[in-house]
Amino acid sequence: MDRREFIKGGMVSGAAMALAGRGWAGPWLPTGATKPNIIIILCDDLGWGDLGCYGAQTIKTPNIDGLAGQGIKFTDFYSSAPVCSPSRAGLLTGRYPPRTGVTQVLFPTSGLESIINLRIALGGAAIALPQDELTLADLLKKDGYATGAIGKWHLGDLPGFRPNDRGFDHYLGLLYSNDMAPLPLYRNRQVVEKAPVNQDYLTKKYTEEALWFLKENKGRPFFLYLAHTFPHVPLHASPDFLGKSKAGIYGDCVEEIDWSTGKILDALLSYGLLENTLVMFTSDNGPWWTGSPGYHRGRKNETFEGGMAVPLIASWPARIPVGKLSDQMTMNFDLFATSLAVAGVDLPKDRIIDGKNLLPLLEGREAKTPHQYLFYYQARDLQAVRSGKWKYQLRHFVQYPPLGKNQGPWLFDLENDPNESYNVIDRHPEITREFEEVLEDWNKNFSRGMKL
Amino acid sequence: MDRREFIKGGMVSGAAMALAGRGWAGPWLPTGATKPNIIIILCDDLGWGDLGCYGAQTIKTPNIDGLAGQGIKFTDFYSSAPVCSPSRAGLLTGRYPPRTGVTQVLFPTSGLESIINLRIALGGAAIALPQDELTLADLLKKDGYATGAIGKWHLGDLPGFRPNDRGFDHYLGLLYSNDMAPLPLYRNRQVVEKAPVNQDYLTKKYTEEALWFLKENKGRPFFLYLAHTFPHVPLHASPDFLGKSKAGIYGDCVEEIDWSTGKILDALLSYGLLENTLVMFTSDNGPWWTGSPGYHRGRKNETFEGGMAVPLIASWPARIPVGKLSDQMTMNFDLFATSLAVAGVDLPKDRIIDGKNLLPLLEGREAKTPHQYLFYYQARDLQAVRSGKWKYQLRHFVQYPPLGKNQGPWLFDLENDPNESYNVIDRHPEITREFEEVLEDWNKNFSRGMKL
Repeated sequence: MDRREFIKGGMVSGAAMALAGRGWAGPWLPTGATKPNIIIILCDDLGWGDLGCYGAQTIKTPNIDGLAGQGIKFTDFYSSAPVCSPSRAGLLTGRYPPRTGVTQVLFPTSGLESIINLRIALGGAAIALPQDELTLADLLKKDGYATGAIGKWHLGDLPGFRPNDRGFDHYLGLLYSNDMAPLPLYRNRQVVEKAPVNQDYLTKKYTEEALWFLKENKGRPFFLYLAHTFPHVPLHASPDFLGKSKAGIYGDCVEEIDWSTGKILDALLSYGLLENTLVMFTSDNGPWWTGSPGYHRGRKNETFEGGMAVPLIASWPARIPVGKLSDQMTMNFDLFATSLAVAGVDLPKDRIIDGKNLLPLLEGREAKTPHQYLFYYQARDLQAVRSGKWKYQLRHFVQYPPLGKNQGPWLFDLENDPNESYNVIDRHPEITREFEEVLEDWNKNFSRGMKL
Repeated sequence: MDRREFIKGGMVSGAAMALAGRGWAGPWLPTGATKPNIIIILCDDLGWGDLGCYGAQTIKTPNIDGLAGQGIKFTDFYSSAPVCSPSRAGLLTGRYPPRTGVTQVLFPTSGLESIINLRIALGGAAIALPQDELTLADLLKKDGYATGAIGKWHLGDLPGFRPNDRGFDHYLGLLYSNDMAPLPLYRNRQVVEKAPVNQDYLTKKYTEEALWFLKENKGRPFFLYLAHTFPHVPLHASPDFLGKSKAGIYGDCVEEIDWSTGKILDALLSYGLLENTLVMFTSDNGPWWTGSPGYHRGRKNETFEGGMAVPLIASWPARIPVGKLSDQMTMNFDLFATSLAVAGVDLPKDRIIDGKNLLPLLEGREAKTPHQYLFYYQARDLQAVRSGKWKYQLRHFVQYPPLGKNQGPWLFDLENDPNESYNVIDRHPEITREFEEVLEDWNKNFSRGMKL
């Protein structure tokens, strides 16, 4: 049975197949039942509009589209920051990035670029995810999960701050963005390929390592965090994909990631694990110079929607109905809380967790987002807040004066104006006032939980 | 008969009505026939996506939509610059702005802002449209047209450089953008309202003056250049429109301009002139902080499409078939050449005119644009060139380094990627090479005709 048949079958008998495949029985997480597997596939700088199922015309992503078809697709999902490192800190800790101290893009601690880290550190920001932060991998590993990180890390490269120090049993990848200095390829604590790594084969290598990880751990619950290096610049694709898409090498990169996703789904199917694996596919922030933000305004670095609106697809045939769409606002720290809920692990009680369990939404038991408000941070600057269809925005990019003075504050009606073209602040003074109070309260209470 | 009936009627008997209305007879421009009237309505910073007929959802523009319905709407029309002054220089002279010397936004010559002009002048750019440039009004006036300019001028305020010195019999308006210093309202050479003008009533005043001009000149051919101050910031609307649109005060401004357009069309109809008047509606550049660029990337100031793609609607019931759409690339200096052709006036022979006569395209006698290439200038910097569906782009904004280093050159396939999301330069080395040669040749020959 290939995946296409599986998806069809899943519409009728998905739950039954899960029972057959993994000894799943009766109510949710009964004693002795096998815990679900969790895979998070995170792209780097992939835009909201770059997947076929999000409207891309010149990039073909049949495997990812199929994943959406067998699960749920979110239209109003956000990264927790408009740039890499803080967004990853948010995803892996379940917290708004400023709470973790990671508010800026981090740079290697050796070499010339370390000067930028020094500047960041002098400004009071962390230059790695602080050791007292708990990652999703820490918590799942403690619960007995096999944990693997493959790909870009970007949360610190000093001993004690690498993936193997942050809850991951296994790691293969580049510790930083692929445009930062010549980078070596690490497997766990060893350099296995000296800098500069041949990036043409990175996606292939990540995929092979992921397949190895699945095979190695197919007999026990696992958590795989596959954080692709692409489509971040500089763009590279293997000879099989180079020159194949209609969207230049950016499209080639995305199509290779689509291939990779297909390989992983095929492996899950062949091991009888597809049914009971929650697979989530997303991006760390909006597209940078290349890539499509879809109908959104702005790009990476900005708190306009295009900087933070990213795809989220979630599939878990045993529990998530096929072919659903949700326009409810959610944020990547929710993947933390959702994964723990799926594993039956309690949220940490010694700290503020901003992420919410999306399982009721994924399963269709709830129609509404668990969030009353979502906040948009640019570094440690609280720039915007969304509630329902409204977004109240003070600024959109810290260093953005050259195009004219800041024209905020704005009030956008995202339902009627998803492009954030029209400021309707003069129409709704009462909503504006409410948002101002919300921001003030949030800032007051938030600072208690902040590292900065 | 109201305009709705007229539009319906025009579909069947437009030409016959023209004959009845104005003694029009036989072939094109026979001896003694009344020459067609020409009206150019130019908005300031109106985006490509801000009109109902260009997809706006929250702004209602029934009169402008009706104008498009009785004529032709262009999807790939460009301003000749991504900012005000050079775009207006291009429109009124038929030439790429750098040929005229006007390459920058101009500022009042009195007051503190004149310092910016000094900087511009020291950089070699003109601080007014030079006196040896011929405007469309110069040429039509010489041919016997009554010529009126109403609204924003923005091509110089020193004596000798004002609208009345540049071919216009009549003028009412602000000489600069409404965000530049406190500005007085001029009628011809007289200040009729001291600075600061109450901008709430500007659109109404412009409209009343336009109606007066039409009445005054209904017995002879006329050229009316109605250059609205809005929706440039600061935004103002009269009490009748304030708070009425669903797109904030920006929408109110656009809806008041729509009302104004309706008033002008009503007057033309009541004087029996609608049939034989070429009405063209457009904008000087893309939207700035507010307003919608539609599906385009970028905004005012940028040579990405959103900075220069603007609406163009043209109606002339006697000659333009109803309800047409054109995706052919054209630029606002074409309005110069088209207007002269419509008036039967020869193009100046002592200088390079870049604009082409669009009449064959408007009438449907030709399906293709007369332009093989269109060039995108940011100030005097040649940044991009378009030919057919291809756009080759070197840069998109001069002072735009803070978001990361320039990622050009780009090759965009505007047919498959109208948002300019994907650089396909690696796919088409031969097209890229051709464009590089075109740019080199163009720069070589162009500099001969340049003032700078």
